[in-house]
Amino acid sequence: MSDSLKLFEQELISYLPKEDGYINTVIESMRYSLTAGGKRIRPMLVIEFAKLCGGNEEAAMPFACGIEMIHTYSLIHDDLPCMDNDDLRRGKPTNHKVFGEAAAVLGGDALLTLAFGTVLSERSVTLNGYEKCARAARLLADNAGAEGMIGGQIIDTESENREVTPERLRIMDSKKTGALIKASCLLGCICAGASAEEFKAAEDYAENIGLAFQIVDDILDVTSDEATLGKPIGSDKENNKSTYVSLLGLEKCRELCDELTNKALSSLDIFTADTSPLRSLALTLRDRTS
Amino acid sequence: MSDSLKLFEQELISYLPKEDGYINTVIESMRYSLTAGGKRIRPMLVIEFAKLCGGNEEAAMPFACGIEMIHTYSLIHDDLPCMDNDDLRRGKPTNHKVFGEAAAVLGGDALLTLAFGTVLSERSVTLNGYEKCARAARLLADNAGAEGMIGGQIIDTESENREVTPERLRIMDSKKTGALIKASCLLGCICAGASAEEFKAAEDYAENIGLAFQIVDDILDVTSDEATLGKPIGSDKENNKSTYVSLLGLEKCRELCDELTNKALSSLDIFTADTSPLRSLALTLRDRTS
Repeated sequence: MSDSLKLFEQELISYLPKEDGYINTVIESMRYSLTAGGKRIRPMLVIEFAKLCGGNEEAAMPFACGIEMIHTYSLIHDDLPCMDNDDLRRGKPTNHKVFGEAAAVLGGDALLTLAFGTVLSERSVTLNGYEKCARAARLLADNAGAEGMIGGQIIDTESENREVTPERLRIMDSKKTGALIKASCLLGCICAGASAEEFKAAEDYAENIGLAFQIVDDILDVTSDEATLGKPIGSDKENNKSTYVSLLGLEKCRELCDELTNKALSSLDIFTADTSPLRSLALTLRDRTS
Repeated sequence: MSDSLKLFEQELISYLPKEDGYINTVIESMRYSLTAGGKRIRPMLVIEFAKLCGGNEEAAMPFACGIEMIHTYSLIHDDLPCMDNDDLRRGKPTNHKVFGEAAAVLGGDALLTLAFGTVLSERSVTLNGYEKCARAARLLADNAGAEGMIGGQIIDTESENREVTPERLRIMDSKKTGALIKASCLLGCICAGASAEEFKAAEDYAENIGLAFQIVDDILDVTSDEATLGKPIGSDKENNKSTYVSLLGLEKCRELCDELTNKALSSLDIFTADTSPLRSLALTLRDRTS
């Protein structure tokens, strides 16, 4: 683990409220999912874009923690029986399996709320000033809300067992996973006081890796099914959801991933500072096997 | 309805995203509960404290809308089958009865997120500046989160069918209903740039009406049961929850309400501007019959 990520892990849990004998359950629910072994892609994007645009890591940390809290809450609520009804997440029991549904709903709500409290915390304001903190929290609200991530989730919920057009799939993914990935890159830019050109480059990078990320997910879904279950390619394992693979075919999807990743790499060309961490990240996301 | 409240109702729904054919369900879920006939006590507190401390109503509106969105989301999630499992709220079907559980969870999440987006919106920043908006959003996060409202909900969830001490009941209520009432009064102070003495008076007022509000709720629970069902005083209708009435008795509760309301009124004595709307509000909350 990089030094940045070690610092991030420490700072992340430092924002949790202290247990007082009354509210322990909700804090344990929050901590369980926050520390359940995420890849921390979003915080890395915040930190790396902040550094690339001349900002500092310490100031970027509260923004990185805030976006990871939002990502984590969305997984807790997504796993609930009334949503995807998942028993396992990253090989561990899902939050509601451990704490019950009420504490999972409340733990998720509390993480979403704490995300804003963290971005706007005393520490964050001391390091970033009121204006950057307010802009960061607003960006988070816009991208995590009904027009961003939550919008993607409602489209997903309503896409089961029906025909999905490529346009609908693109809009769903740009909201469901794309919005938070874009917000991560732009939070780094806000923290560093980036130029308009740098914001634009970050947005291009984010849009390309965001879409590539989703397509890789779809590829892995079918290739892992194929490898382990012998299912035909293109059939989603749990329901009749359309995916990039079912719409475009496996080969075309692999080509598209290469193309998108190359575009993401090109968007970094305007920077004079070291872009290698962000280049590695784009390639790692393309080549991952899980 | 007062002119302030009319303006509030208009502005409240103006922050909802536009329907685009993809995310309509979540927007309809948000709108349904936002406009389901709340008493708007919290927004009134924001607006009246802003005016009392020399601020203006227009600038207070985004803060008033933000806190009502938080209150509304908490009711949607509180009514879910895994929480209180209520079919009706204010005489209308609860959100999940109309839109299904998934859209109720997501509609609540989206309202919570939009609350921060509203307090930090372009309109709010133009009227209040970055610093006040950031401080307001932080105050909201602190009072709505695990140490505030959500903490009260987890204590409530864990208080069923067990003996509850007066101390536990006090802590639960100060978080569950008290925290947002306090936040409302203080949001008005932040908007107006109030003095430390004014902040203190607002906090005293809030704490006294907040506790009185909860005790009146408990009184109404048993007196309405008594009137309509002939149940013995002190037994909660749905489960064995302890209440102020079961702990202190009805007469002592009524005395305590008078005492708290008088304290709330006294806390307004430091103001030279017109305190009559806040005085009326305290008396109305004490004397309400539903």
